[in-house]
Amino acid sequence: MVSRQNGGGRKGTKMTIRIGIMGYGNLGRGVECAIKQAPDMELAAVFTRRNPEDVHILTETAKVYRADEVERFSPITGAAPEDAIDVLIICGGSATDLPEQTPKYASLFNVVDSFDTHARIPEHYAHVDAASKGASTTATISAGWDPGMFSVTRLYSEAILPVGAAYTFWGKGVSQGHSDAVRRIDGVLDARQYTIPVEAALEAVRSGSEPELSTREKHTREVFVVAEEGADKERITEEIVTMKNYFDEYDTTVHFISAEEMARDHSGIPHGGFVIRSGRTGWDEEDTNIIEYKLTLDSNPEFTSSVLLAVARATWKMAQNGMYGAKTMFDIPPAFLSPRSGEDLRKSML
Amino acid sequence: MVSRQNGGGRKGTKMTIRIGIMGYGNLGRGVECAIKQAPDMELAAVFTRRNPEDVHILTETAKVYRADEVERFSPITGAAPEDAIDVLIICGGSATDLPEQTPKYASLFNVVDSFDTHARIPEHYAHVDAASKGASTTATISAGWDPGMFSVTRLYSEAILPVGAAYTFWGKGVSQGHSDAVRRIDGVLDARQYTIPVEAALEAVRSGSEPELSTREKHTREVFVVAEEGADKERITEEIVTMKNYFDEYDTTVHFISAEEMARDHSGIPHGGFVIRSGRTGWDEEDTNIIEYKLTLDSNPEFTSSVLLAVARATWKMAQNGMYGAKTMFDIPPAFLSPRSGEDLRKSML
Repeated sequence: MVSRQNGGGRKGTKMTIRIGIMGYGNLGRGVECAIKQAPDMELAAVFTRRNPEDVHILTETAKVYRADEVERFSPITGAAPEDAIDVLIICGGSATDLPEQTPKYASLFNVVDSFDTHARIPEHYAHVDAASKGASTTATISAGWDPGMFSVTRLYSEAILPVGAAYTFWGKGVSQGHSDAVRRIDGVLDARQYTIPVEAALEAVRSGSEPELSTREKHTREVFVVAEEGADKERITEEIVTMKNYFDEYDTTVHFISAEEMARDHSGIPHGGFVIRSGRTGWDEEDTNIIEYKLTLDSNPEFTSSVLLAVARATWKMAQNGMYGAKTMFDIPPAFLSPRSGEDLRKSML
Repeated sequence: MVSRQNGGGRKGTKMTIRIGIMGYGNLGRGVECAIKQAPDMELAAVFTRRNPEDVHILTETAKVYRADEVERFSPITGAAPEDAIDVLIICGGSATDLPEQTPKYASLFNVVDSFDTHARIPEHYAHVDAASKGASTTATISAGWDPGMFSVTRLYSEAILPVGAAYTFWGKGVSQGHSDAVRRIDGVLDARQYTIPVEAALEAVRSGSEPELSTREKHTREVFVVAEEGADKERITEEIVTMKNYFDEYDTTVHFISAEEMARDHSGIPHGGFVIRSGRTGWDEEDTNIIEYKLTLDSNPEFTSSVLLAVARATWKMAQNGMYGAKTMFDIPPAFLSPRSGEDLRKSML
């Protein structure tokens, strides 16, 4: 890959890393917002499968292109340094977009994605690794908060406290997948599902007792539904709480509300959660130590995007250091995520 | 430096990383306990400035040597691979031991220390860097929890949420330095000082309001004192609460207790604390996101030692990868801290 000491762009008078965004939904827009806060990065272009004229971005200095125009921004296929995209952040979905897009674009760019289908990560990693090694690019997959910062926290915590137990709780937050599943029920106009960690389970974990917790004991689910006029609310409730894989293993509460209440009280996309590890130390494992990492997010997609952008910076640095191939946040030295120098970090943050 | 694919030792039938411990106080003993839990490391030897015959370690398979015997375990000065120490963990104090020891031993071994005088880190780093680069060793300084995991959390959090504010709180926990300062007061037989975060300050920070907090608003101090019979308790209390640099900027509570109560209720060395960052996202910074990292430790030295041992593993891997010179936890890819393979980590933890 064409290597440059710094990115090709300029922000004020400084050299900057030029970021491309593939896909402009909640995540793509979040990346755009995060770039506004970064001193060392600039938005080069946004790519969409929609008609570019219908996509209105917030950044005045950047343009929207058709997804199939992205190749001419690749430093590998000969884009001029001032046009080239240093890192392409792929903001598609994990079900069908990313398995196809990430290997494809990793052969043209350094890339970052947020692939979050945990069970399929090894397979995705292998495909992306082959493509990126072939092109001498760096491709960081599964960045975000889970997978992402939660994974990193699980790793640090287990490496430090190998004898113990780890727990991940999600929420309180909106699950898009569960909300969509409820919306598909006959008679439902709109729905919002919140995943809520059970306080008693959190307390048991924090006590260091290393409890065995069932799915039902860890989380409850709360659903807000706008039903069609005259719809059978009992039948809808029954369909929700018994829905296989989504609700049947949880205690679920269903509330019927008006469209106005939905718009007023449930328009945000908050989320968060906890990673807690309790581990025993001492010759006879007599001491208990608890590590707890907690996220409380007003905006799930914006926080995820903010992680993606920091990871894009690290991906660029890994590429500059010849660290090609597929990577995850496990492979990133934390210093690479920051715009600060190593000297500055040691002085101000260590 | 002599490079080997794996450490020279054996634990069961596996090749292991051979660890040396320099200094056998609370920290050295904690490292020894942590090695017992590590599948891939073994204790090679303990070094002490005391008479080795007076130092009784817990590990039956290792021996205690005089500190000045350490050189013959150096792979650089020609120790046989089965005798060589792969990583020497230096468990001395930051005031006088580590500034001298870490550069000295970094010219003979891969080393890890827990240097925690924040203001002098740049200077210490420079000395260690020169020594380790000259010998092609890897030397990780300032490992532990603060500096250490708290620093890493501050870095990740700022890199992800650059617009916001970060706060570190310590406690509830025992401060050895403050306890020692009280013990030097005339009429004091024994003392234990606890640093306690102020709950209202924690709540203000968690709200995302980015409060400005004075020293007094963040922590209180609580002191337990065993006084000599007939000592003037009012004078002792006055000397404590007005002590410059230690107590004068804090609200301090002093309790007089018996020697029996001290032994019964205050023999542990618990500690912990919080790193909290609140950061704003969105085009107009309209959303607030809170990252909170919390440690609750039964044993401060054992937890620190557990970090040191994970960092020793990473230091060994960095050395195997030719990453010589001074390092901090900012430079360590998280995967290097774990005994698991990258494939295993991606499958089980991402």
